[in-house]
Amino acid sequence: MLTNTRRIPIEWGDCDPMGIVFYPRYFTWFDACTAALFASAGLPKHQMLKTYDIIALPLVTTSAKFIIPSKFGEEITIETTISEFRRSSFDVRHRVFKGDQLALEASETRVWTGKDPEDPTRFKGLPIPQEVIARFTAGDRETAAK
Amino acid sequence: MLTNTRRIPIEWGDCDPMGIVFYPRYFTWFDACTAALFASAGLPKHQMLKTYDIIALPLVTTSAKFIIPSKFGEEITIETTISEFRRSSFDVRHRVFKGDQLALEASETRVWTGKDPEDPTRFKGLPIPQEVIARFTAGDRETAAK
Amino acid sequence: MLTNTRRIPIEWGDCDPMGIVFYPRYFTWFDACTAALFASAGLPKHQMLKTYDIIALPLVTTSAKFIIPSKFGEEITIETTISEFRRSSFDVRHRVFKGDQLALEASETRVWTGKDPEDPTRFKGLPIPQEVIARFTAGDRETAAK
Amino acid sequence: MLTNTRRIPIEWGDCDPMGIVFYPRYFTWFDACTAALFASAGLPKHQMLKTYDIIALPLVTTSAKFIIPSKFGEEITIETTISEFRRSSFDVRHRVFKGDQLALEASETRVWTGKDPEDPTRFKGLPIPQEVIARFTAGDRETAAK
Repeated sequence: MLTNTRRIPIEWGDCDPMGIVFYPRYFTWFDACTAALFASAGLPKHQMLKTYDIIALPLVTTSAKFIIPSKFGEEITIETTISEFRRSSFDVRHRVFKGDQLALEASETRVWTGKDPEDPTRFKGLPIPQEVIARFTAGDRETAAK
Repeated sequence: MLTNTRRIPIEWGDCDPMGIVFYPRYFTWFDACTAALFASAGLPKHQMLKTYDIIALPLVTTSAKFIIPSKFGEEITIETTISEFRRSSFDVRHRVFKGDQLALEASETRVWTGKDPEDPTRFKGLPIPQEVIARFTAGDRETAAK
Repeated sequence: MLTNTRRIPIEWGDCDPMGIVFYPRYFTWFDACTAALFASAGLPKHQMLKTYDIIALPLVTTSAKFIIPSKFGEEITIETTISEFRRSSFDVRHRVFKGDQLALEASETRVWTGKDPEDPTRFKGLPIPQEVIARFTAGDRETAAK
Repeated sequence: MLTNTRRIPIEWGDCDPMGIVFYPRYFTWFDACTAALFASAGLPKHQMLKTYDIIALPLVTTSAKFIIPSKFGEEITIETTISEFRRSSFDVRHRVFKGDQLALEASETRVWTGKDPEDPTRFKGLPIPQEVIARFTAGDRETAAK
């Protein structure tokens, strides 16, 4: 599976009075990292939404395990990959490293969401196109490159 | 002129490693306070956007003077009023108090923005309806109440 | 168990381009709601940290299930309670309602964290004082009131 | 004067329901850009605070002029420089570009703040060391390099 890695410097404004990252910030980064993973698969989110006529990729669940806190002035790297695709939803896994130490693990389930064909005022999970899924799978990407 | 007051408890997540409010937070509160002022004038933003077919009230300028910092566990009050209406823009003034001490002063200029009638893909400043302006002026509001 | 309820208006700045709450915002609210629960138990966080010589209540895990999205202009209520106390950690449960509909469920595990007595440069989970736990239990609170 | 440039991709979570950057986000970036400017002068903020025994560089004033909005999926660059040093305060200027177009201009005045020598429980503006100022001046930096 395709994996994307982002380096993130911990800024003063990311940290709380204890001097460590205020934890909701991680979720803001995860959201950007999921978008960056799609971009690295050739699907920048703002174009993908138009191309496939979807509205967003909203979360249905997320969970996180905080192992090592990070402080102002440090740098983390976040590795993001999709662990499973289903019909209209998929699971994303984020692993945050400080150097080679795992600092935080998180997962999220998102839904490929567009307008309900039967009622355009409502949102609905729609089937994820096979060509989208193929972009995240190494084998298929090689094939596509031939 | 109509004035709206909001009490805001300073939360842990609002503060930086120095233990005081991370200053961009004030602008987030000011944006909500401007919306609350319109709501107190009978114009909740989400309805007003529809009623008057505008898109938003984007800022063109803002400035702030930070006098006294605020810490986690304290409470501030923000007084918000419109200091001037012009054809398609208006000035908002925010004053932040800790008890009876002025802790911060800020002003912002916003534009009544809708789709350009000549090119709906573009945004444009539009004339602010007189009935909107009247809602912020005590005299007119009394008249309206008769 | 003591439960605290907060009403939260959804502001413009809480929402994403889809017009719904950008999900990391929920975690910011949850952090404030946990602090508000302690405050409602007579333990405002900024005083509690001093009284008990602890540094913070950092999370070790969190998870959330997003059921109904919330839009700009709506209001949610968040009910927060502690579902279990252990020696040095405890579980918090947040339930977000839109009217009487459950919109989101989340849980978090936090640690009562102070300086390691054997190495004050390090943080360590410390035993939660019984008098703290007693403040969250209806029976004990009655007893305490006698 | 030393200038630092940062490229910032506009993320989904940076944008409001209008699809453009929610303006307080710019101030968060400016704060990080000021820190990055100091880092580019060989003074990473987290080390500088320790080296010079200061607590932070809090703002006393800021102002911004918003010229062109930026949307999700776009990229901006922020050029940051110090326009003037005074005894204990200094002015920072940020210019935001979209391609070669000026999208936003902002300035801020910050204070070199430490503990008041006469009352360590209070904060006070302290003289900015000449060696710090020298790092931002091209001539002095050349001299220093000889």
